[in-house]
Amino acid sequence: MARIVALQTHDVRFPTSQSLDGSDAMNPDPDYSAGYVRVRTDAGDGLEGHGFVFTIGRGNDVQVAAFAALEEHLVGRDVEEVLGDLGGVWRELVHDSQLRWLGPEKGIMHMAIGAAVNALWDLKAKRAGKPLWQLLASMTPEQIVDLVDFRYLTDALTRDEALEILRAAEPGRAEREAELLRDGYPAYTTTPGWLGYDDGKLARLCREAVEEGFTLVKLKVGGNLDDDVRRLGIARDVCGPDIRIAVDANQRWDVAEAIHWLEALAPFDLAWIEEPTSPDDVLGHAAIARAVAPMPVATGEHVANRVLFKQFLQAGALHILQLDATRVAGVNENIAILLLAAKFGVPVCPHAGGVGLCEAVQHLAMFDFVAVSGSTEGRVIEFVDHLHEHFVTPVDVHDGRYHAPKAPGAGTEMLPASIAEYSRG
Amino acid sequence: MARIVALQTHDVRFPTSQSLDGSDAMNPDPDYSAGYVRVRTDAGDGLEGHGFVFTIGRGNDVQVAAFAALEEHLVGRDVEEVLGDLGGVWRELVHDSQLRWLGPEKGIMHMAIGAAVNALWDLKAKRAGKPLWQLLASMTPEQIVDLVDFRYLTDALTRDEALEILRAAEPGRAEREAELLRDGYPAYTTTPGWLGYDDGKLARLCREAVEEGFTLVKLKVGGNLDDDVRRLGIARDVCGPDIRIAVDANQRWDVAEAIHWLEALAPFDLAWIEEPTSPDDVLGHAAIARAVAPMPVATGEHVANRVLFKQFLQAGALHILQLDATRVAGVNENIAILLLAAKFGVPVCPHAGGVGLCEAVQHLAMFDFVAVSGSTEGRVIEFVDHLHEHFVTPVDVHDGRYHAPKAPGAGTEMLPASIAEYSRG
Repeated sequence: MARIVALQTHDVRFPTSQSLDGSDAMNPDPDYSAGYVRVRTDAGDGLEGHGFVFTIGRGNDVQVAAFAALEEHLVGRDVEEVLGDLGGVWRELVHDSQLRWLGPEKGIMHMAIGAAVNALWDLKAKRAGKPLWQLLASMTPEQIVDLVDFRYLTDALTRDEALEILRAAEPGRAEREAELLRDGYPAYTTTPGWLGYDDGKLARLCREAVEEGFTLVKLKVGGNLDDDVRRLGIARDVCGPDIRIAVDANQRWDVAEAIHWLEALAPFDLAWIEEPTSPDDVLGHAAIARAVAPMPVATGEHVANRVLFKQFLQAGALHILQLDATRVAGVNENIAILLLAAKFGVPVCPHAGGVGLCEAVQHLAMFDFVAVSGSTEGRVIEFVDHLHEHFVTPVDVHDGRYHAPKAPGAGTEMLPASIAEYSRG
Repeated sequence: MARIVALQTHDVRFPTSQSLDGSDAMNPDPDYSAGYVRVRTDAGDGLEGHGFVFTIGRGNDVQVAAFAALEEHLVGRDVEEVLGDLGGVWRELVHDSQLRWLGPEKGIMHMAIGAAVNALWDLKAKRAGKPLWQLLASMTPEQIVDLVDFRYLTDALTRDEALEILRAAEPGRAEREAELLRDGYPAYTTTPGWLGYDDGKLARLCREAVEEGFTLVKLKVGGNLDDDVRRLGIARDVCGPDIRIAVDANQRWDVAEAIHWLEALAPFDLAWIEEPTSPDDVLGHAAIARAVAPMPVATGEHVANRVLFKQFLQAGALHILQLDATRVAGVNENIAILLLAAKFGVPVCPHAGGVGLCEAVQHLAMFDFVAVSGSTEGRVIEFVDHLHEHFVTPVDVHDGRYHAPKAPGAGTEMLPASIAEYSRG
C-alpha cells in the first residue's frame, strides 16, 4: 500500500516588478510568486502531485508556512484512499474546526488548502494517465456532485439541482470533447494592457494580439481617467470595431466613483468592466451593474469562496464570473462555482496570467464545456504571455485559442530547474 | 529619538479542550490560543505595545509567522511618528499591495495587521498614561475620522457623515464618562451555555449568573434540536421570565434549516439568534431575518472586514452588531465599524471570551458610549469567565457590569509568566 510521505514546499518568486509586467492600478510592482507544494508518496512510480498559490511577492513565505498545518491531515495516509474520496478529504480540510477559525474559508489558510487539493488532483490525474479536464469529464454526475460541499449553498443550488444540470449535459459529452480536441477553447489576451506600458508598446501589442487571432483584448484602467480615455482610443483605433475590448479596474473605486468613471468609458463599447470595487462588496457591484447597464460587470479573481459567488449571482451583481484556480479551495470548490454559474446561466471566463494560472484554469473551463454548461458561448479564458516556460506542460495558445492539453495531470507542475533557480530559503 | 526595534512574537496556547470550555456546534474542542506580538522600542521607558490574534489552536503558528511580514513596515521607525499617525500607518499596512493579495483584507494577514495595530494602540495609550477607551474618547472628531479609511464605505458612510455623528456626541462626553466610571457598562454571560456542559451544570451556571446580576445569558444551539429545546426549557425555568436569553448557532445552518430550527425555538422569546449561517452570507442573513422577525439577528465575530459589515447593515441583515477585537484590522477598523453601526442606528454588542477578548473589547464599547453612539440602550458586552488571570489588567466584571478600566493601555498585555508557561517553540 502506497502512502503520502511528505508535503514538500517551496517559496518561488519571479522578479517581475523589474519589467512592470502585471502592473495595474492597485498593484504597481508585483513580483509574481508561488507558494508551492508537492505531495510525495512512497508508491515508487515517480509521480508527485504539484499545486501552488499564486501571490505577488511579500508574504509568500507565510503562504508557504500554512502548508505545514495540513500535514497531519495528509501525511501517512493511504494514497488510494485519499484520491478515491477527494470530496471527503476536501470537507475534512476545510471544516477542520481549529484551522477554519483562521478564515473561515478565506485568506491564507483557505488558499493553502486549495493548493493542497489541487496537488492531489494533479496526482490523481497523473495516476489515471489523463489531463485533469478529461478525468473530470469522465466522471458520472453522481461522482461529480460528491466532490461538492453544498453547505451554505442550498438556498441557491441543491445537490439534486446540480445533478440535473450535469445529467442534462451528459448526452453531448463525447461530441464536445471531440470538438475541444479539434478546435480548442476561445482565449482573450491581457498582454497589451498593463498600466506600466507606454502608448507605443500598447499600440504594438494590440496590433500583435489581433494578428495572433485574439478577438478580445483587455486593458487595465483606474489610474487616471484622461489616460484611460486616451489608451482606450489607441486600442480601439488599432484593433478596429470588430475586436472586443474589456477593461479591468482592479478594485480601484468606490461605488459612486465607479459609476462616474464608467460613464466616461461607456462610448468605447466595452466587453465588460472587471473588478470595479472591493471583491467583498456584492451589493456595491449590484448597484454599479444597475447604473452602468447594459455594460456587463465581471469579477472573481479575489472572491474568497463559493458563498460570496452565490450572493453575486443571487443579487445580479455579476454578468461574467471569473473564477481563479488558486484563490478558493481548489478544484472541488471551483466545481461548486461552475455549477452555481450554470444554475444562474452566467458565463464563466476564468482569471489567468500570474504564475501557472493559465496552465491550471484551462482544465476547469474545458471540463465546464464538456460536462457542465456544455457551451463556449460568451466564454473566453484569459491569456497572458509570461512565465509559461517554467512549467512542465505549458499552455498551447495559438490562433486566439487554448488548445486542449493532452498530458496527464493538472498542468500545475513547475520545472525542477525553475523551482531551484527561483526558490528562497 | 526612540525607534521601534522589534516585533517579538509568541505562539501561546491554553489546553482548554480538556474541559470543553468554549465547545459549540462548530467548534467541539477548541484550544484557546493567541498569536501574540510585542512592539518593543529603545525608548528606555520600559513600555511595550502588546497585541494578539485569538485563535482556537492548530494554525496558531501560521498566524504568528505572519507578523514577520510586517517588520519591514515598522521596525526601525520613529516611535513618535508612528504613534502620531496611526491612520496613516493603518493604510500603509492594509494597502501594502503585495500583502493585500493574500486577503484582500481578510484571513491570517489581515488579522496579523490587526494585532500589530492593536499593539501600537496599547503602546500609545501606555505612553499617554490612559486606558485606551479614555484616550480615544479624548480625541477630536477630526482626529478620530483621520483614523478611518473610508475606501469602499462611501456609498454608506462618508467622512462628513462620520464627522457629523461624532460632533453630535461631543456635548455629552464628560457626563457619560463620569457615568461610566461610576456605573460601568452592561454585560451578559455565555459561561453557562457551552454545548459540552450537561444539564445539571447548565442549570447551576444559569442560577449563578442570575445571582451575579446578569440580565442576559446566552446558550449555544445547533447541535440537536431536541437538546436545544430541552436546554432552553431548563434555562428559562431557572432564570425566570425577566432574564433575557440569547442563542448562538455558530454558523451551523443553511438558510432554510435556520428558519425551520428557529421556528421551534421562537416560543422561548429569544433576545437574539447569533451566527445562524455563514458569516459571509449577507443575503442569507437577510432572508433569515425576514423569516424569523421579530427575533433579532446578530453576527460579527467572524465578519472579515468593514466592507462586509457595511453590507449587513445596508441589507437589514443584522439587528445587533457583534464586533470582535482581533478579527478585523484592529482599533482603526473597529472605529469604522462603530461609525457604520451608529449611522444605521444598530446597537453594537461586542463578541468577547476567547483569550483576552473581554479585556480588549470593553475599550471599544466604552469609547462608543462616550464619543460615538452615546448610548448603552440595547447594548451589552459579552463576558465569559475564563483565562482572565493571565492578563496584567484583567477585566473587572461584577453586578452584571463591566467596570471601566483605569490602567494605562489597551488591556492586551499578558503576564510574562503566562506567556512563558503556555508558549510553544
